[in-house]
Amino acid sequence: MSYGKLIEYADAAPEVRAVMDEIKAARGVPDVNNAWKAMARHPAVMRRFWERAKAVMQPGALDAKTKELIYVAVSIANGCHYCTASHTALATRKGATEAELAEMVEIVSLALEGNSYATFYGQEVDPALKG
Amino acid sequence: MSYGKLIEYADAAPEVRAVMDEIKAARGVPDVNNAWKAMARHPAVMRRFWERAKAVMQPGALDAKTKELIYVAVSIANGCHYCTASHTALATRKGATEAELAEMVEIVSLALEGNSYATFYGQEVDPALKG
Amino acid sequence: MSYGKLIEYADAAPEVRAVMDEIKAARGVPDVNNAWKAMARHPAVMRRFWERAKAVMQPGALDAKTKELIYVAVSIANGCHYCTASHTALATRKGATEAELAEMVEIVSLALEGNSYATFYGQEVDPALKG
Amino acid sequence: MSYGKLIEYADAAPEVRAVMDEIKAARGVPDVNNAWKAMARHPAVMRRFWERAKAVMQPGALDAKTKELIYVAVSIANGCHYCTASHTALATRKGATEAELAEMVEIVSLALEGNSYATFYGQEVDPALKG
Amino acid sequence: MSYGKLIEYADAAPEVRAVMDEIKAARGVPDVNNAWKAMARHPAVMRRFWERAKAVMQPGALDAKTKELIYVAVSIANGCHYCTASHTALATRKGATEAELAEMVEIVSLALEGNSYATFYGQEVDPALKG
Amino acid sequence: MSYGKLIEYADAAPEVRAVMDEIKAARGVPDVNNAWKAMARHPAVMRRFWERAKAVMQPGALDAKTKELIYVAVSIANGCHYCTASHTALATRKGATEAELAEMVEIVSLALEGNSYATFYGQEVDPALKG
Repeated sequence: MSYGKLIEYADAAPEVRAVMDEIKAARGVPDVNNAWKAMARHPAVMRRFWERAKAVMQPGALDAKTKELIYVAVSIANGCHYCTASHTALATRKGATEAELAEMVEIVSLALEGNSYATFYGQEVDPALKG
Repeated sequence: MSYGKLIEYADAAPEVRAVMDEIKAARGVPDVNNAWKAMARHPAVMRRFWERAKAVMQPGALDAKTKELIYVAVSIANGCHYCTASHTALATRKGATEAELAEMVEIVSLALEGNSYATFYGQEVDPALKG
Repeated sequence: MSYGKLIEYADAAPEVRAVMDEIKAARGVPDVNNAWKAMARHPAVMRRFWERAKAVMQPGALDAKTKELIYVAVSIANGCHYCTASHTALATRKGATEAELAEMVEIVSLALEGNSYATFYGQEVDPALKG
Repeated sequence: MSYGKLIEYADAAPEVRAVMDEIKAARGVPDVNNAWKAMARHPAVMRRFWERAKAVMQPGALDAKTKELIYVAVSIANGCHYCTASHTALATRKGATEAELAEMVEIVSLALEGNSYATFYGQEVDPALKG
Repeated sequence: MSYGKLIEYADAAPEVRAVMDEIKAARGVPDVNNAWKAMARHPAVMRRFWERAKAVMQPGALDAKTKELIYVAVSIANGCHYCTASHTALATRKGATEAELAEMVEIVSLALEGNSYATFYGQEVDPALKG
Repeated sequence: MSYGKLIEYADAAPEVRAVMDEIKAARGVPDVNNAWKAMARHPAVMRRFWERAKAVMQPGALDAKTKELIYVAVSIANGCHYCTASHTALATRKGATEAELAEMVEIVSLALEGNSYATFYGQEVDPALKG
C-alpha cells in the first residue's frame, strides 16, 4: 500500500518466493533487485512480468546484449531512472562496453531530436514508405 | 511558415540543395524524404541535424543495423509515426529482418511495462547499482 | 527560487495559508503534503490548481475512487513518482483495494504496449471510428 | 515491411486467422480493426498481445467499463490517436457515457498539470507516503 | 461520440456558440479552428479550457509571443502535431519570426538531449540547487 | 559503468578537464554541476553536448533568458527533475523572475492540457494551417 515498500524474501508469500528463486537462479545472484521486492506486493503482476521478461529478453533473432541496449534506450527516452540503472547493469553483464553504451545514448538523443523535427515540420509519411 | 509545407529541390536555396545532394549520394536515392523537404524551411537546422545524424549513425562500436533498430525503438516509445516509418525502412535497408523488427517492438513494450512498474512501485535504486 | 524548497504554514503568506486551510479541512489532515508546500512559492498557481483539482475530482458521472485511479494511471504512464505516491494514497483513502490497484497498473502497461504497436504498425484510423 | 500495410483475413496466415476469428467472436463484429490487420505482419506478436489484452481487460476487481476508461486515459496522456479512437469506441460499447468521457479527459489533463508542478517544484516524497 | 467529429456553429448548442463567438472576436477570425469544433462535443470542457487559455496566455510578466513559443515548444516535445500547427500559426500572428521558430525547435531538441543524459548518467541534484 | 558515479576534476582525463575548464570560465563558477561530472564517463559525448549547448543557447533571434525558459519548459513537460533544477537556476541567473517562472509553468500545463484534448477529440489539421 505504501510507496517503495520492499518485501524481503524472508517475509514473502510462497508464490513470491518462487519467482524470486527463479530470478536468482537465472541471473546467478544472491538476492533480487529492489524492483522485484517492491513488486512483490502484487504477486500476480510479478509472476506475469517475470514470465514475459524472460520470454522477450532471451536470445532470438537479436542477441541478449543488443536486446538489453534497446531496453535501456527506451528507458532513457521514457525518463525511467531505475530501469536505466538496472538494465545498464544487465547490459554490461551481457557484454556491453562503455563505447557501446556511449553510442547508444547518443542515438537516443538523436532520435528524440529527429522526432522533434518531425512533429514541428509536420510532413506526411512518404508514399514510398507506406504499405 | 505553414505546417507540412515541402520545399522541392528545384525551389530550394543553394545551402539546402547542398545537403540534399549529400543525402542522395550517401543513401543512393533519387530524392530525399519529405522530412528533409519540410525541414528545408530552416537551412541551418537541416545542416546541423544532417551532420549530427551522419556522425552518430555511422558504424562504430555498434554496427549500422543495430543503431537503426535503437533509433526505431526510441521513436516508437516516443510515439513518432514518421520517424518509425522512415527509420524502419532504413533499418531494413541495412539488413534488419522481420524477425528482428518483431523482437525489437516487443522489447519496446516490455521496457515501457517495466518502466510503469518502477514508477508505481517506487523503489529506490539499489546501492549495488550506484557509483 | 530553489528546487524543492518547502514553505511551512507558519511562514506562509496569507493567501497561501487560506489554500492550506481549505486542503486540510477538505481532506481531514493536520498538514498538507510537500507538493503544496513547494508550490506555495507561487500562490496564484497554487490557488488556481487547488480550485481546478477540487472541481475535477469531486464525484460526478464518475465516482471519487474511479477518478483517483485514472489520475494515478496517467501519473504512472507519465513517469511522475511523486504524483503516483500521493494519489495512490488518496485512492486508497477513497476505497481502492490492492486488487484494484494491481489491475490498474496492468492496464497502464497494456495500454502503453498497445500504443507502441499502433505507432510501429502505423495503420490509419478505421472509417467506422471516425465522425 | 511497409508502414501501415493491412493484411486482410483472406490473405492471412492460418495462425493470424485464428486470432482474428477469436476477436470477431469475442466482440461480435464482422471484421477486426485495422490495428489487428497491420499487426498481422508479425503473428507471434499479435497472438501474445491478444492473449494479454483478453486477460487484463476482462472484468475483475474493476469492471469492464472502468478498465476501458483507464486504457483510454493512458492512451490520451501518451498521445496515441489510434488507441484513443478505438478504445473510446470500446468504452462506449461497454456503457461509458459522454458525461463519463468528458470527466475522464479532464482528469487526464489535471493529472498532467499536477505532474508538471511536481517536476517543477521538486519536493521529496513525504515520509508518510513511503513504505 | 465519434473520433474527430466536428460540430459547426450552425449546429452547435447555445453555450457552445457563446464560446465560439468569444474566440472569433478575440482572434478576429471568421470561424474557429477544428480543435474547438471537435471539443464542442463537451461544452463544459470547452468553456473551462477557453477560460483557462485566455487567462494563461494573456500578456503578463511574459509577452504574448514568448508565451506562444513556450506553448509550441512543449507541444513539440510532447509530440502533438495539431497543437504544433495551430500554435505556430498563433505565434507567427503574434510576431514570431522564422529565425525565432528555428531557434526554438533547436532548444526543444537540445533539452531532450540533455534530459536523456540526465536519465542515463543519473547524478543526484547538486546541493546548491536545492532549497 | 555505475549509475550516478561522479568524476571529479582531479581524477578527470585531460579531454574532460578541458571541457570542465571551458564551462567554469563561461559560467564564472568554481566547479561544474554534477551532470557534467557524471557525463565525464564518456568524454566524447560530453564534448559534443557542450559544443551544441553553447551554440544553441547563445543569444540570437531569441535572448538568453527566453531560451532558458523554453529549455526549462521542455524539461518539465518531459519530467526531468535534474534539468528542471539546473536550468531554472540558469534562467534565474540570466534574469528570469519568479513571476516569469510562475507564468512559464502554467503555460507548460496548459499546453499539456491542450495536447490531451487534441489527442482525445481527434480533429484533422485545418487546411488553413497546412503548407
